Amino acid sequence: MIKIAIVGATGYTGGELLRLLTNHPKTEVTCVTSHQSAGEPLVSRHPFLKGQYTLDLETLDVDKISEKSDFVFVALSHTTAIKPVQQLIQNGKKVVDLSADFRLDSAALYKKWYAVEHTAQELLQNRVYGLSEVYRDKIKNSSLVANPGCYPTGTLLPVFPFLKKGLVDLDREIIIDAKSGVSGAGRSATPKTHFPEVNEGLLPYNIGSHRHLPEINQEITHFSGQPPKTIFTPYLLPVNRGILTTIYLPLNETLTQSQIDAVLTAYKSEGFIRCIDHPANISAVKGTNYCDISAFETPSRRTVILISAIDNLVKGAAGQAIQNMNLMMGWDESLGLMTPGLFP
Amino acid sequence: MIKIAIVGATGYTGGELLRLLTNHPKTEVTCVTSHQSAGEPLVSRHPFLKGQYTLDLETLDVDKISEKSDFVFVALSHTTAIKPVQQLIQNGKKVVDLSADFRLDSAALYKKWYAVEHTAQELLQNRVYGLSEVYRDKIKNSSLVANPGCYPTGTLLPVFPFLKKGLVDLDREIIIDAKSGVSGAGRSATPKTHFPEVNEGLLPYNIGSHRHLPEINQEITHFSGQPPKTIFTPYLLPVNRGILTTIYLPLNETLTQSQIDAVLTAYKSEGFIRCIDHPANISAVKGTNYCDISAFETPSRRTVILISAIDNLVKGAAGQAIQNMNLMMGWDESLGLMTPGLFP
Amino acid sequence: MIKIAIVGATGYTGGELLRLLTNHPKTEVTCVTSHQSAGEPLVSRHPFLKGQYTLDLETLDVDKISEKSDFVFVALSHTTAIKPVQQLIQNGKKVVDLSADFRLDSAALYKKWYAVEHTAQELLQNRVYGLSEVYRDKIKNSSLVANPGCYPTGTLLPVFPFLKKGLVDLDREIIIDAKSGVSGAGRSATPKTHFPEVNEGLLPYNIGSHRHLPEINQEITHFSGQPPKTIFTPYLLPVNRGILTTIYLPLNETLTQSQIDAVLTAYKSEGFIRCIDHPANISAVKGTNYCDISAFETPSRRTVILISAIDNLVKGAAGQAIQNMNLMMGWDESLGLMTPGLFP
Amino acid sequence: MIKIAIVGATGYTGGELLRLLTNHPKTEVTCVTSHQSAGEPLVSRHPFLKGQYTLDLETLDVDKISEKSDFVFVALSHTTAIKPVQQLIQNGKKVVDLSADFRLDSAALYKKWYAVEHTAQELLQNRVYGLSEVYRDKIKNSSLVANPGCYPTGTLLPVFPFLKKGLVDLDREIIIDAKSGVSGAGRSATPKTHFPEVNEGLLPYNIGSHRHLPEINQEITHFSGQPPKTIFTPYLLPVNRGILTTIYLPLNETLTQSQIDAVLTAYKSEGFIRCIDHPANISAVKGTNYCDISAFETPSRRTVILISAIDNLVKGAAGQAIQNMNLMMGWDESLGLMTPGLFP
Repeated sequence: MIKIAIVGATGYTGGELLRLLTNHPKTEVTCVTSHQSAGEPLVSRHPFLKGQYTLDLETLDVDKISEKSDFVFVALSHTTAIKPVQQLIQNGKKVVDLSADFRLDSAALYKKWYAVEHTAQELLQNRVYGLSEVYRDKIKNSSLVANPGCYPTGTLLPVFPFLKKGLVDLDREIIIDAKSGVSGAGRSATPKTHFPEVNEGLLPYNIGSHRHLPEINQEITHFSGQPPKTIFTPYLLPVNRGILTTIYLPLNETLTQSQIDAVLTAYKSEGFIRCIDHPANISAVKGTNYCDISAFETPSRRTVILISAIDNLVKGAAGQAIQNMNLMMGWDESLGLMTPGLFP
Repeated sequence: MIKIAIVGATGYTGGELLRLLTNHPKTEVTCVTSHQSAGEPLVSRHPFLKGQYTLDLETLDVDKISEKSDFVFVALSHTTAIKPVQQLIQNGKKVVDLSADFRLDSAALYKKWYAVEHTAQELLQNRVYGLSEVYRDKIKNSSLVANPGCYPTGTLLPVFPFLKKGLVDLDREIIIDAKSGVSGAGRSATPKTHFPEVNEGLLPYNIGSHRHLPEINQEITHFSGQPPKTIFTPYLLPVNRGILTTIYLPLNETLTQSQIDAVLTAYKSEGFIRCIDHPANISAVKGTNYCDISAFETPSRRTVILISAIDNLVKGAAGQAIQNMNLMMGWDESLGLMTPGLFP
Repeated sequence: MIKIAIVGATGYTGGELLRLLTNHPKTEVTCVTSHQSAGEPLVSRHPFLKGQYTLDLETLDVDKISEKSDFVFVALSHTTAIKPVQQLIQNGKKVVDLSADFRLDSAALYKKWYAVEHTAQELLQNRVYGLSEVYRDKIKNSSLVANPGCYPTGTLLPVFPFLKKGLVDLDREIIIDAKSGVSGAGRSATPKTHFPEVNEGLLPYNIGSHRHLPEINQEITHFSGQPPKTIFTPYLLPVNRGILTTIYLPLNETLTQSQIDAVLTAYKSEGFIRCIDHPANISAVKGTNYCDISAFETPSRRTVILISAIDNLVKGAAGQAIQNMNLMMGWDESLGLMTPGLFP
Repeated sequence: MIKIAIVGATGYTGGELLRLLTNHPKTEVTCVTSHQSAGEPLVSRHPFLKGQYTLDLETLDVDKISEKSDFVFVALSHTTAIKPVQQLIQNGKKVVDLSADFRLDSAALYKKWYAVEHTAQELLQNRVYGLSEVYRDKIKNSSLVANPGCYPTGTLLPVFPFLKKGLVDLDREIIIDAKSGVSGAGRSATPKTHFPEVNEGLLPYNIGSHRHLPEINQEITHFSGQPPKTIFTPYLLPVNRGILTTIYLPLNETLTQSQIDAVLTAYKSEGFIRCIDHPANISAVKGTNYCDISAFETPSRRTVILISAIDNLVKGAAGQAIQNMNLMMGWDESLGLMTPGLFP
């Protein structure tokens, strides 16, 4: 059994890692940290896990964590993960970082979007961007994986096969209209996420300025060799979990429905991607590591409508993080992740 | 006091007409009909209206309705409104039809989309499409107004000023991504609208085949003289009321944010259109006849993001119907419609 | 036109007063205050009111308020209303206080439950507890009305006719099981009211220790002359508005369904109380000043099940406050309050 | 591997059995039936299970089922399970019936509440009522287990330890106020469960006449030897899953909080019952077989407030059914059921 530490265990992502790891046959969680609740039983912050864990929350002490664990998931908030990740790597640990701190290739771009200096730039070159299905081979050989953002995961997976085949017209705009459940905003209470403000509403936010945009652009550029023209509109959706992303993808040749379907057969042996012939719905992926993808031709056939559904906390965070751990450890990629979702 | 009949009073649209008309100073509802519940007290089907109305529901008898009322709102389901509307017009009544039966100019197109022959084609020429802010003058002189669909209302109002100024590039695709509350699907129980199927989900549906698409295209063609290339993706959103429509509108010249805002000043003296500088949210229009519009430039400035919010039952149905009645009667357009919405 | 000030205008209760007062024919809001947002336009904090008000928010300056207004609604949070209310009364204003600060007869009890000294005890004797239907005559002659809490309103109205007729067995326990929408918790974001924590849950809280309990007990004692044995279980319900209160009321004689119905005819000429023969549902009172009451016999006939539904922000706060203002001003009690609710 | 058939696989209970059985190490589902969808792939009715099952739905043919399977879960609707269960037992199969058809001891009572003759009365004597924690030993030796209703499960588990110790005053009324998520009403669309009718509401229903009442009374009588005086108020709660049951239980002696807690230690070695010191919330049991129980003393100490939370589809249906299968097969009772829940 590999010993696991979770740094920042009291948020929704931490809770989800803990939930999923109860199903994992090769790991044991030995250390959980929390800045605010150190000393308390883990289940006091996650009552739903009562009966599953008896650990107490600890303060973040990198050396102690390094002693107690072989593999570390870092689920801290943005800008606070840099230093502990750096130290854990120095201590020889394997790390999946679920924050945004190691996602961008460029320290300059990081500074621009996150307003702090990146103080572990030496790690940026060798870290791998953890979009599992795309960077599988690199992830296997990596000690530090930057787990993708939830919006980039829901966007890049459906787009990737079209990019890979050179079918995308990068001179036209790629329109991404992405609706996220509220758990994507984290567990801290804010005026915008107060129940009556969200419920019975639908709030577009950060239009043109969401921090997941440079991440999406970076990866499309990697795939295609050309910076894309992306328009990205995120929304706060009054549900707990799930991101439904609709992408209006410009094509450089016409594609019929059956040609579109053929492109998506690129995923036919992927265990966590389900290409379906009816519109994807977040209901069908709740609690799972699946990314459901549906695709529709348009009258012009020069634009394809791609709709993906993921659970932002699973494929968009903790599930993909465990998938990456499985790859990094040389295990079957699906270990601990095949539990079906919850419907309704 | 003008006497009002509501034909088909037990659905959500009927209930909303009844709700709004309690505030109207120049009307009195004298007749309400229902196919299934004739003979029952109106409030047995609308318990929230108890204390406001003492009417009983009647069967649909056009001559009786014509005797009892001066003005008729027809809120029947599609294809069943043609005949009663025809008879009411023959009886000299003024009518606002809230179904889709008189929205399309072309009987052939109607047959294609609704799969029945249009048996009152003689009315199609003189009926007016009731997008109040756009066709105000024609509506004033009309006896039969076809009340617009909810999606077309949320789409056309923000797009209209750009079309009118010739700013839209009609050779590129207009992308309409529209999320509707469940009341938009009507009051009849269906498997798709069963609570646990909708709740915690987000369901795209009828992609490329929604019946509001020909209506949108017809009106854009009227404004612009050229059939548009529209892509229309509707969604069932787990809220009761509201449509949030995001339109990615292609421009034939670059527009900065301030130029965009200037275009929207076309609406500056409109009482029911609020142009706002933050993203529109259905929360802010719930229960009102407002259409909130927000607009955002994009990096290329060749596409503008337009976001509108309406209450599908008010500006998208009953409210606009009353606004049209006010116009048809020569009254102040806002009579009975200025009550603020409900938040939260 | 009477000039109205609203002290503490940015919360949900403040917003609701503003919403309702747009319908009031004899008042004009001239002054709105906010501690945090002074200087901003009122509608920046209440976007749904855009087009209805053009006021700016001001700091709380009692003398300025007194100059600008004739009648004041104080919608501050508990313990912060005492001083401004005292000063407004000294300035000769009529006041409805929507906080809890003047609800309890006893300053000692206030100190026990709110943990601060009551510094305006001289006002406690002449202030009237504003349960409109019960204390109507006293309210008419009062300058200071303490507006009842939402839970007490939903509890006391159905219980009152039984108490008045001496039908309640005060030696047995009165069980109150009351489910409240989240707006009842106010507009400030807290961990407990963060959307994903509330949604899809149902949280009992403050069992036996809710601050509305002494208020309920005080009033039952007034009605009956004997302190009751109340058990009060409140819940946070995942909806925006509404309190559904179920009371298991012990009787000192057997009552059949028709005898129960007869007791409730006490309310037959009340405009805001609707006694209904099917179970009350908060859906039917949303946005209204109605209290719906349904009552059911039990097999023993020694206990009656009373179920009331109110909108916590209207009959449970702003609506009843305006009803009280109408009484204090000698106006028709229903002015501005007859607008029907919103369903769905 | 034991071969499993699920008769009536397309409802929510069928889907939940299928979900949970993917985690079960000793079973394999070999046969799934559906009246309406026979011939279709199972996943066409349960899209969330895509990738987990490749079975097709079959018609209900008892002999074919008997050939294909060793153990049968019957998840048909009430009154339609009698005959297939009878035949399956005749064919020597072990059966858990999740309908109400074998829950009541008395055929006469069954006829009274379900309005049909019970045509398999010979089975009523030997069938066991499957409240696992209470009837464990009998279940182990049974071939036919009647799986308890969701409301009775949530009610009886917290009450049982008090009954067993003779602490309940059966001459006073036991008040049960139980709020259920909408999946408890089944998967068929009805006017009452149409999304906008349920959402933002809270509907009490079937007061004094719910079919789970005789089941609750039967079991309390078994435990105590005396028919109880129960008052049962169920509600439709606008969430997908979960029942929160609050029981006001009359005691025949005073109990302090610590004495109450001591009574509940009866469950200290139960794997699926979690006694907690804060109010139970359905959020914490979503997707799990747990029953969370919290208990609170009252001022008189002659009544205890018991609050239980279960997932109606798991401990209230499919989970307890699998727990019963595990007992009937002589396996570890928790096989396949220890997966943690989903929060948020």
